[in-house]
Amino acid sequence: MALETEIKSGKLKMRLKSLRQELIRLKIDGFIIPRTDEHQGEYVAPSSERLAWLTGFTGSAGVAIVLTGKAVLFIDGRYTLQAKAQVSEDLITHYPLSTNSQAKWISENLKPNMKIGYDPWLMTPTQEIRYREACKISKALLVPVAKNPIDEIWKNRPVPPSTPIIIHGIEFAGQSSDSKRTHIVELLQMEGSDAAILTALDSIAWLLNIRGSDIPFSPLFEAFAIINNDKSVELFLDKTKLTQSVKKHLGIDVRCHEQEFFAQAINNLKNKTVRLNLETVPVYILRQLENAGAKIQAGADPCQLPKSIKSSAQLNGVRAAHLRDGASLTRFLAWLDANAATGTITEKSAAKTLESMRLNNKYYKGLSFPTISGSGSNGAIVHYSVNSKTDRNLEKGTLYLVDSGAQYLDGTTDVTRTIAIGTPTNSMIHHFTLVLKGHIAIAIAQFPKGTTGSQLDILARRALWEEGLDYDHGTGHGVGHFLGVHEGPQRISKVPNKIALEPGMIISNEPGYYKTGSYGIRIENLVCVIAGRHLSFETLTLAPIDRRLIDIDIMEKKEIEWLNDYHARVCKELSPLVDEKTKSWLVNATVAL
Amino acid sequence: MALETEIKSGKLKMRLKSLRQELIRLKIDGFIIPRTDEHQGEYVAPSSERLAWLTGFTGSAGVAIVLTGKAVLFIDGRYTLQAKAQVSEDLITHYPLSTNSQAKWISENLKPNMKIGYDPWLMTPTQEIRYREACKISKALLVPVAKNPIDEIWKNRPVPPSTPIIIHGIEFAGQSSDSKRTHIVELLQMEGSDAAILTALDSIAWLLNIRGSDIPFSPLFEAFAIINNDKSVELFLDKTKLTQSVKKHLGIDVRCHEQEFFAQAINNLKNKTVRLNLETVPVYILRQLENAGAKIQAGADPCQLPKSIKSSAQLNGVRAAHLRDGASLTRFLAWLDANAATGTITEKSAAKTLESMRLNNKYYKGLSFPTISGSGSNGAIVHYSVNSKTDRNLEKGTLYLVDSGAQYLDGTTDVTRTIAIGTPTNSMIHHFTLVLKGHIAIAIAQFPKGTTGSQLDILARRALWEEGLDYDHGTGHGVGHFLGVHEGPQRISKVPNKIALEPGMIISNEPGYYKTGSYGIRIENLVCVIAGRHLSFETLTLAPIDRRLIDIDIMEKKEIEWLNDYHARVCKELSPLVDEKTKSWLVNATVAL
Repeated sequence: MALETEIKSGKLKMRLKSLRQELIRLKIDGFIIPRTDEHQGEYVAPSSERLAWLTGFTGSAGVAIVLTGKAVLFIDGRYTLQAKAQVSEDLITHYPLSTNSQAKWISENLKPNMKIGYDPWLMTPTQEIRYREACKISKALLVPVAKNPIDEIWKNRPVPPSTPIIIHGIEFAGQSSDSKRTHIVELLQMEGSDAAILTALDSIAWLLNIRGSDIPFSPLFEAFAIINNDKSVELFLDKTKLTQSVKKHLGIDVRCHEQEFFAQAINNLKNKTVRLNLETVPVYILRQLENAGAKIQAGADPCQLPKSIKSSAQLNGVRAAHLRDGASLTRFLAWLDANAATGTITEKSAAKTLESMRLNNKYYKGLSFPTISGSGSNGAIVHYSVNSKTDRNLEKGTLYLVDSGAQYLDGTTDVTRTIAIGTPTNSMIHHFTLVLKGHIAIAIAQFPKGTTGSQLDILARRALWEEGLDYDHGTGHGVGHFLGVHEGPQRISKVPNKIALEPGMIISNEPGYYKTGSYGIRIENLVCVIAGRHLSFETLTLAPIDRRLIDIDIMEKKEIEWLNDYHARVCKELSPLVDEKTKSWLVNATVAL
Repeated sequence: MALETEIKSGKLKMRLKSLRQELIRLKIDGFIIPRTDEHQGEYVAPSSERLAWLTGFTGSAGVAIVLTGKAVLFIDGRYTLQAKAQVSEDLITHYPLSTNSQAKWISENLKPNMKIGYDPWLMTPTQEIRYREACKISKALLVPVAKNPIDEIWKNRPVPPSTPIIIHGIEFAGQSSDSKRTHIVELLQMEGSDAAILTALDSIAWLLNIRGSDIPFSPLFEAFAIINNDKSVELFLDKTKLTQSVKKHLGIDVRCHEQEFFAQAINNLKNKTVRLNLETVPVYILRQLENAGAKIQAGADPCQLPKSIKSSAQLNGVRAAHLRDGASLTRFLAWLDANAATGTITEKSAAKTLESMRLNNKYYKGLSFPTISGSGSNGAIVHYSVNSKTDRNLEKGTLYLVDSGAQYLDGTTDVTRTIAIGTPTNSMIHHFTLVLKGHIAIAIAQFPKGTTGSQLDILARRALWEEGLDYDHGTGHGVGHFLGVHEGPQRISKVPNKIALEPGMIISNEPGYYKTGSYGIRIENLVCVIAGRHLSFETLTLAPIDRRLIDIDIMEKKEIEWLNDYHARVCKELSPLVDEKTKSWLVNATVAL
């Protein structure tokens, strides 16, 4: 994560105080501080970490509401413990974050005629409606503020990022930006849209075949865009990011403007039918469009679905990236096995070693998310992020869970392995095998066209359910191609979704089991949907699965076959890419069951 | 079905002509004739079979639109062939029925300023919006008519049903009407409703613990009701249906009015917050409420979910009903086995024989739906309904599919068995075994609280999917308790739904496979959700599954165990209830694999 500094209570107190003074100056009684930025992505630039700066909370999902008399922080369930450690509950009351909890708190805690401010660039229309309805119940008013008061009081705020943009070559992208725009414009024309507003950074990067490094863990650059139905694009960004060659790559159909002109450009859309995603667009933009007299057409970001379906060139890149990434992970696993007995490896040092193994890989551009390196009971914390306070040695008789991934020019990786340190207990072996059965059920699934990830989800859980167990996260998320490690619209999840899995989509396969206070287990490979007589998955990730944790007696024949085939493939494909010592470890680690 | 008469082209021509004259008199250019009645249930009284009377089409889902110049019939995919046989395509063009196809046709075929009439008692608000939007596109007008023109021209129209209402005793219902009303009123109060409109006949029957016989195959009576948040009910119906004892059963809190006063009573709800289901309420009622100044609160029928969760008294009744029903089916299967070789049994005579086996059962009140009795290629027609034209002998080397059910005072049944007549082919055996594997996967499923039927659906299809096969219908529907054989809100289906399965819900488990032109396979048992360490199903239906159609080599150990356990239970529980001959057949039919 970008900010890992803990804020002492004193600092928090001071910051709350200066925010409250600012509220008085603005003549409002409260202010809403979401963690998100204007683009509603997973990661934000340091200059947009307003919630972390104010409260010290660095989780990736949360909202604070500060009133003159009280302050609350709504925290995503994954970060409950982290928030406890980071944010003094004496100064800010903690609540769980959910669709309704902020609304409920507002409806119960605001007084009539109170004015609650919000930054309309950081809130979506869908969110705004929910807040507005909640304020209505308590007869309070929700008011947009022209300038975010946090920015007024944030001394030494990092400058907004302005890293150079690079061209994402056709050899990686597999499709020219012109061809993508032609396709998107067809979609717009079919639905009668004159233009679409793009605010999601991965959509803009994908559409124009360019990348940046403004945002941690994702090769994105801050920008907004409008795609017109004549295939031209208005791109709004800090123009110093553009080199001559990038400008040439973009061509004359992509008109570049400074970012500050975006809101203004919206006015030119008067009388046009404009498509935008009400779940992600800043409400500021929606209001501007309405005022300009544009006809609003609510709909998904038109790039989202095409972006999720990878071309064969992209898939070939992803396969190559997984070979390099798998070799690095395998070197790490061999090193871990050789050194775990020393008792000197810690969660932090392990994560660092793994990172160093990937560092010199061809096309390597950095991690795709903060490595989760959890030993023993820390492994049971689903989104555990090690820090100096929680760091611990990898001890014998425990499980070690490592979930990591990298960004390469030719693809994005995301893999989890759970490793026995010393001798595992029977219960560890039993639970690991149940998770593995679920993983294999997804890996070998065959399904007709039109099937969604929510239909497949149960396959990953069935073996656990039969013993009354489960895991409290999705089974799989979409993965971008040298873009966000989490992308939509497809996913494998209990939550109903209507997105059919299509050939070319990449998705993770990551069932798990977490025994609070004891250990965590997760086995994650990326897979891509392939077409045949019916649809099925090709496993992309290559790395051994710990054989010492498998109870062969509860494995079905076809499950054992899958594992042996997978291990044979892992050994064959990775052996040429690793040193001799790793190779001999790999051969052992992938012996048939 | 209620009407099975085929209408000759001549009659159809005449009826269309007199409808068109009526349209001229009403100064409209077209009229929409849905199959549904005011209650939007599955079956309608003969007096409401307007679509069947006009067009001759007797399927349970369809809509006709008659213009002065042309006429179209939209037919549910299950009835395509039936409609071809019943309705001359020279006079009415056939189209597949779907959410959008009528709207599309209207938007493409109406001319500006045309007036299309509809009966606002037979259309829901949701449907009306869709038609209205479609008319807008072609600049036509959708206009409600005060009196249905079909009723004006339908000579010898059956009188609306007026069968006596009977009390559904507490020994069957397991809960008093007063207790049910107390619960419903709590739900209404929680959501701030002053009253709820009930138009679904099964909800009214359930709420008041009474039954009727106005409607084929379901023990329902025509009525409307309003439940007020003081627990009182306004019941609108033909009061001649009420005996003194029923009036006494209803008590003073249930005020009975003639049905014609329903619309009027709506006016008394002015300034009230009124809950109604926009998917099922007649749009007439919605408009009336709006005109009266009521506050509309859209929501599910408040009886629907509580009705689906059966009490232990109800479940005990259902178990008893399944014993009697299973004994009858078993007698039929034994008889079929003994006589199939004669070659004289036809689909029609088989269905009749099966009906006769149930006739003298305790508490028997009739079939719960028209028996599907399909041999050979007729078995591959999912909703096949045998008639004298399609009837055929059960021939050696074919499969015979029989899907039937009955209404008993203590429960409703629905069961499908597929039987080998003579020696089955390897492909029949293979496909039957795949379907059986799916059936067993549902039967033995274990799942946590909160799981929906759409999550479980894939378990029933997985074995078929692995061979690129599938079936084009849901896996399971809810079943009422001496009420509709199809009821919501739960179901097992590919279609995403958010209704969690709860202990006490009854649902069918009926995967199938259909080889067009050759044979159909379906294995259906009813199951109920039971609570334990986790949720699972108890199979309610008791009848042998044809062992001659099972390929044991592709069955897993736990699948064989389930089948053997089930057969042992079937044999043990039904043996005491059948004659000696049937018993010895049953013992053979249920020998362990």
